[in-house]
Amino acid sequence: MAQTPAAADAVPPSLDGRPRANELRAEVARIAEELTGQGTPPRLAVVVATEDESTAWYVRSIARAAEKSGLECAISTLSPGSSPEAIRAELARLSADPAVHGVILQTPLPEGAVAADLAAAIDPAKDVDGANPLSLGRLAAGLPAFAPATAEAVVELLDAHRVPLAGRTVAVVGRSTVVGKPLAHLLLGRDATVTVCHSRTADLAAVTRRAEIVVAAAGRIGLITGEHVGEGAIVVDVGTNPTPEGGLAGDVDTASTARRAAAVSPVPGGVGPITTALLLRHTVRAARGARERAV
Amino acid sequence: MAQTPAAADAVPPSLDGRPRANELRAEVARIAEELTGQGTPPRLAVVVATEDESTAWYVRSIARAAEKSGLECAISTLSPGSSPEAIRAELARLSADPAVHGVILQTPLPEGAVAADLAAAIDPAKDVDGANPLSLGRLAAGLPAFAPATAEAVVELLDAHRVPLAGRTVAVVGRSTVVGKPLAHLLLGRDATVTVCHSRTADLAAVTRRAEIVVAAAGRIGLITGEHVGEGAIVVDVGTNPTPEGGLAGDVDTASTARRAAAVSPVPGGVGPITTALLLRHTVRAARGARERAV
Repeated sequence: MAQTPAAADAVPPSLDGRPRANELRAEVARIAEELTGQGTPPRLAVVVATEDESTAWYVRSIARAAEKSGLECAISTLSPGSSPEAIRAELARLSADPAVHGVILQTPLPEGAVAADLAAAIDPAKDVDGANPLSLGRLAAGLPAFAPATAEAVVELLDAHRVPLAGRTVAVVGRSTVVGKPLAHLLLGRDATVTVCHSRTADLAAVTRRAEIVVAAAGRIGLITGEHVGEGAIVVDVGTNPTPEGGLAGDVDTASTARRAAAVSPVPGGVGPITTALLLRHTVRAARGARERAV
Repeated sequence: MAQTPAAADAVPPSLDGRPRANELRAEVARIAEELTGQGTPPRLAVVVATEDESTAWYVRSIARAAEKSGLECAISTLSPGSSPEAIRAELARLSADPAVHGVILQTPLPEGAVAADLAAAIDPAKDVDGANPLSLGRLAAGLPAFAPATAEAVVELLDAHRVPLAGRTVAVVGRSTVVGKPLAHLLLGRDATVTVCHSRTADLAAVTRRAEIVVAAAGRIGLITGEHVGEGAIVVDVGTNPTPEGGLAGDVDTASTARRAAAVSPVPGGVGPITTALLLRHTVRAARGARERAV
């Protein structure tokens, strides 16, 4: 189909995450095969305590990706009415199981349950999604730790597209414990100058427009528009908002943003595939670590 | 002495920390007396493994402040050649001692020792200077934890002078694990929009000039000058740099900054006194917590 110039304008250079995700998954498959051959098949456990449809879809996609790469994936499905104690007990059981190498606590959680609080029951050596507050603290302090996969995926995506970070200004929109805050630490560790914005930021567009890189991780469809982005900025979209049609939409309004940004990451196909691949990489690394400690 | 207009210009409204520090210390003395009367004299332990003169001065000032407020203060002096294992063992011993309620690991440390790594041996319930990575992670995740006293003192000082934080832009200069990073989390928790700058920030003055509040925590004498500060900004100076004359100098060049800032905190007499008072407050709170758990 022939494109009009206006339509061509509306398509920005895309920060495709799939090539890097494929590389990572090939590396993971190689290590998984090696470990399985040594009698340590890497195993990821996912604890779910919700009937939320988009969560179920996401967990199935992790399980499929794990199996494709030669990892075992076990899903512990708890009742959505589970008490925090029951969830904590399951996380502790999996942490103590020597056959399990990675443990993920999937959100949303039953009312009254606080993810970071429960995740303290995940052994840091198996905390492949960096959910235990100890992992976050170690990350912030520059000590070895698993970072939350989504936060790390943003950095991997930028690295894959050779976007330099040292000395660059980055606006992170969203201050969640799972993305915004750990991402700020990863970016500081890479010598970026980092501004964390959020729902109470007084003039969001004025702040993000000044940044060379904008990372949208607020969980609000279309929050970031052309007026939020400086000329030539790089925009990474972490949003995975379910649409009424059963699809996935990011936090970035691509059409208006594209007119100013140098590049925008797509949803789906940007941060998402790398996130899944990193969860698997963390799990095979955890399995290798467990094996080395046991030998 | 009569001031010339130029000299008057050079004296900015000062964010004096002593009135708030005195309030805090009165509160601490009251609780310490109560606890002592109940048979639980609050006790702070400080581990030192350096012969650094300014550190010795600082530790003596903590001990004096503790005694004045009715707390016991025990200083464990280890040799500057101590191994990380020896320091870790001392922190673990103090953490296990029921008569000790607060444990501080004083920096600098012997070569090869990493403060955040060693501080993992401090029981989080006694980690009154928020040095254990678990405390930092819990702080970042919004869970109850002791914050590093210096970082918390910045917020206390701003609160004492009724500087609103919600929706304000704050530039934190310095990304240390003991001040810059935990301060960023405290400020985010108060709904500020926070930019963390550091030695690799490309154009520091351009970044800090846009902030309504500038916090200098880089540990470099006179780093922040008039050109780094926007008209009417509030400037907090966390620097405690020893001068050749044996005094203390901040990170802020007060003379040039004063011409543009609405207020600047002094060094000494700004963040410092509040920091010490907060260390004592954390210790009496830890003692009260230990007593309540024991009853």
